[in-house]
Amino acid sequence: MSRESFRALEAELKSIHDIEMALELLMWDQQCVMPVGANDQRASQIETMSVFVHERATSEKIGELLNQCADIEAESAHDSYEASLIRVTRRHYELARRVPVELEGRLAQASAEGFALWRDARADNDFAAFLPALEKQIELRTEYIACFDSTDSPYDVLLDRFEEGQTVAKVAPVLDRLKPRLIELTKAVQANQDKVSDAMLHGFFPKNGQEKLSDDIAALLGATETNWRVVETVHPFQQSFGTTDIRLATRYDEAFFSTSFYGTIHEFGHGLYEAQIDPSLNRTPLATGVSMTVHESQSRLMENLVGRGRPFITYAWPKIRETFPEQFDRYGSEDFYRAVNRMHPSFIRVEADELTYGLHIILRFEIERDLFEGRLAAKDLPEAWNGRMKEYLGVDVPSDADGVLQDVHWSEGLFGYFPDYLLGSVLSVQIWEKMLGDLPDLETQIENGEFGALRAWLGERVHWSGSKFTPDETIERVADGPLDPEPYLRYLEAKIDDLYGI
Amino acid sequence: MSRESFRALEAELKSIHDIEMALELLMWDQQCVMPVGANDQRASQIETMSVFVHERATSEKIGELLNQCADIEAESAHDSYEASLIRVTRRHYELARRVPVELEGRLAQASAEGFALWRDARADNDFAAFLPALEKQIELRTEYIACFDSTDSPYDVLLDRFEEGQTVAKVAPVLDRLKPRLIELTKAVQANQDKVSDAMLHGFFPKNGQEKLSDDIAALLGATETNWRVVETVHPFQQSFGTTDIRLATRYDEAFFSTSFYGTIHEFGHGLYEAQIDPSLNRTPLATGVSMTVHESQSRLMENLVGRGRPFITYAWPKIRETFPEQFDRYGSEDFYRAVNRMHPSFIRVEADELTYGLHIILRFEIERDLFEGRLAAKDLPEAWNGRMKEYLGVDVPSDADGVLQDVHWSEGLFGYFPDYLLGSVLSVQIWEKMLGDLPDLETQIENGEFGALRAWLGERVHWSGSKFTPDETIERVADGPLDPEPYLRYLEAKIDDLYGI
Repeated sequence: MSRESFRALEAELKSIHDIEMALELLMWDQQCVMPVGANDQRASQIETMSVFVHERATSEKIGELLNQCADIEAESAHDSYEASLIRVTRRHYELARRVPVELEGRLAQASAEGFALWRDARADNDFAAFLPALEKQIELRTEYIACFDSTDSPYDVLLDRFEEGQTVAKVAPVLDRLKPRLIELTKAVQANQDKVSDAMLHGFFPKNGQEKLSDDIAALLGATETNWRVVETVHPFQQSFGTTDIRLATRYDEAFFSTSFYGTIHEFGHGLYEAQIDPSLNRTPLATGVSMTVHESQSRLMENLVGRGRPFITYAWPKIRETFPEQFDRYGSEDFYRAVNRMHPSFIRVEADELTYGLHIILRFEIERDLFEGRLAAKDLPEAWNGRMKEYLGVDVPSDADGVLQDVHWSEGLFGYFPDYLLGSVLSVQIWEKMLGDLPDLETQIENGEFGALRAWLGERVHWSGSKFTPDETIERVADGPLDPEPYLRYLEAKIDDLYGI
Repeated sequence: MSRESFRALEAELKSIHDIEMALELLMWDQQCVMPVGANDQRASQIETMSVFVHERATSEKIGELLNQCADIEAESAHDSYEASLIRVTRRHYELARRVPVELEGRLAQASAEGFALWRDARADNDFAAFLPALEKQIELRTEYIACFDSTDSPYDVLLDRFEEGQTVAKVAPVLDRLKPRLIELTKAVQANQDKVSDAMLHGFFPKNGQEKLSDDIAALLGATETNWRVVETVHPFQQSFGTTDIRLATRYDEAFFSTSFYGTIHEFGHGLYEAQIDPSLNRTPLATGVSMTVHESQSRLMENLVGRGRPFITYAWPKIRETFPEQFDRYGSEDFYRAVNRMHPSFIRVEADELTYGLHIILRFEIERDLFEGRLAAKDLPEAWNGRMKEYLGVDVPSDADGVLQDVHWSEGLFGYFPDYLLGSVLSVQIWEKMLGDLPDLETQIENGEFGALRAWLGERVHWSGSKFTPDETIERVADGPLDPEPYLRYLEAKIDDLYGI
């Protein structure tokens, strides 16, 4: 009986997964292909489908099947497919049952509408035009938080959605350790700006050359024609529709080389995670990355530890110069290495260097926490934003488009997501050190354009298990310990020494 | 009570429409964006969503609501929104209730799998590799036919799905009138091949130039940036996701100019139909073209009556030559007019001229009828195909890839669809003559690149009503009579006289 129930549960979860993929495709297509005039209609489609997915995922039927599967869970090993599927489904089910279906529908519609308003407001540099959508998002998320048992901070509920078990009490100490040291290092680097130049990365880089380079670099790293696509969008992101269909969306800035090049490598890291999950988990809730921090550790590892390292640049430089011979004629690979690693406070997070990146995140974490703990109103966001930018990074924000409006996340109600970008960077260095220990010739392989061993190691240690374990368990398995900011700080200090001699 | 039921019916139909659009997007994306390795997974997604749409569209709830709406239907005018919505929904409901949900799922999965097999088999010129999928499609469609009351010909059931009320008994007389005359005219033209050359259309036309020209011509005709997209695919088609999101998929052949140019104009005609439906019908079953014949009349009207006419070519020629200055330097607009209107028997339907096109369709109609009336086995298709090609068009088919494997339709189970291509051409001339009567300066407008009056006339007379009326009613409203092959034959004879002097 319970074996039969397990099979029924599995079949139902696979159907739900199929429908979720259709919903994800509606959203992906909205950002990457759909003409803008269809936005209202697409919002209706997304709302209807969200309601439907929610109804199906929270049905009494799932609850009954989960109860009937209690035996199987008890009898199976913790890391078995059966126990993992039942355990993860139960968590999702219990969380989702707390949220009324009509609220789920309003959240989805607000995301679709918010995205369109944000896109226009950012283009027009008009925060006031975006404010009502932002206020609505905060209001809806507050309603969402109220669906759950009270936590130390209301913001904990949002943090937990992207990183199971995450709380302000766990994040704040890590960020508090990083913040003063990052500010200190930023000031030191700022005082030595003349030592490193990135002038070579600014100029005119025709889009078709960048597109070709993005495609080639993704293919070099392991993006096959059979299972991957690289397309263009406003805000770069990665989306998979199962382990066999990985899409990287990248942005092309003809005036700045790094946007698409490092954007593509970053999104590739996300894509590789999804592509290397055990295919036998496909069409189940286990067939996806376990959390945002772990996901981001993979993208930052590819972007920074691999992509901004000397071995990779040594290999890639001839191809880069071949694509833009006029622009790069006078430069060598060491110039490129220094340029792409230049540290310099700027306004835009996604183009920030490794050092100042963390401060962009700390700023967003503090603002989000203050918003949901009631210490900050949405209308005061530009002021809070610009004040912290001055304090942490020493920069004057020139416009809201380059300030508080720069990220897509809040338009879609993604609060609690930002901290994981920095925690992912922290984790990426822990993973990198472990991988170097296991693969002593890794850097030589990379210098020869060989990424097979790297992919295999990450596949085995991080990707293969999908969402079978909790984030904490997953991190423990790959890093032999919890998140630790010290390797990350040591790594930054060594790089600063290398580049700036300080 | 019945007013309340009508609102409930309307709300349910709008939800179903949203979900259908998500399903359509899964299929569109599969052909236009998705990496091929995801095909199995996409087939599961399509199957799950098809089953779900079918369940929802055939629920007892819809039946009850329809019964409760009988009063409203009786009280409302035939052409009112209310009566039309109830009437059309009832027809769909009664048809769909005949088909078991598990059969619906198998049909959808067979389409997805068949498409992939066909694509590979066509690339490999391997009919045997496609045969099992084709046999499965015929078997499944036979099962489908058995769900309905018996008809004079089993094939009638399939014809009726694309053109309500269509039967072999209605189609055969029209095609029988056309067939001998088309064969006669084809022979006469064939004997005068030296009089018209299309050499200028063959050569090397780089894809990026063709893409730009396709985009520009679509924009000229009325495809706005806000609501339209032109993308690339293997087999050209048009897909709309409601009246605000129209997608033209076109194919680029660098060796032949006409494929993408006239393909885009053809698909634009389909798109314009969907784009000009009364927006108040949106998200209902009325918000789509009424039938394949009427749809095809719109695409053939744009492609042939507009696109291959002297006024349009006079206007477009400078832009065409500007795009390919080297290729077209030695030619004038009259050369182009003659080249694109050249009549010459060939193997590929989608590249056939206006005269021989009809014979391609008559061949397919006869083969489909014979397949479903049990006079022909799938394995004998290449022989039947090649024999008729020789008899009707006088050509020897060089390979199955250029023969029986050329069309996507059968791989997706689309039997009964082909005749409407020719019936649409027949209707397009009837509509063109009416429009010329109402808009005496239409050809002057086209010569000046003005398409507003044309769009408005078609919008008012054909597009606006969507699916409110039956195909016969719709044809009657625009053409003041039923389908009539005589204007079509007169039009062809006049063009042959103009080009070949016979």
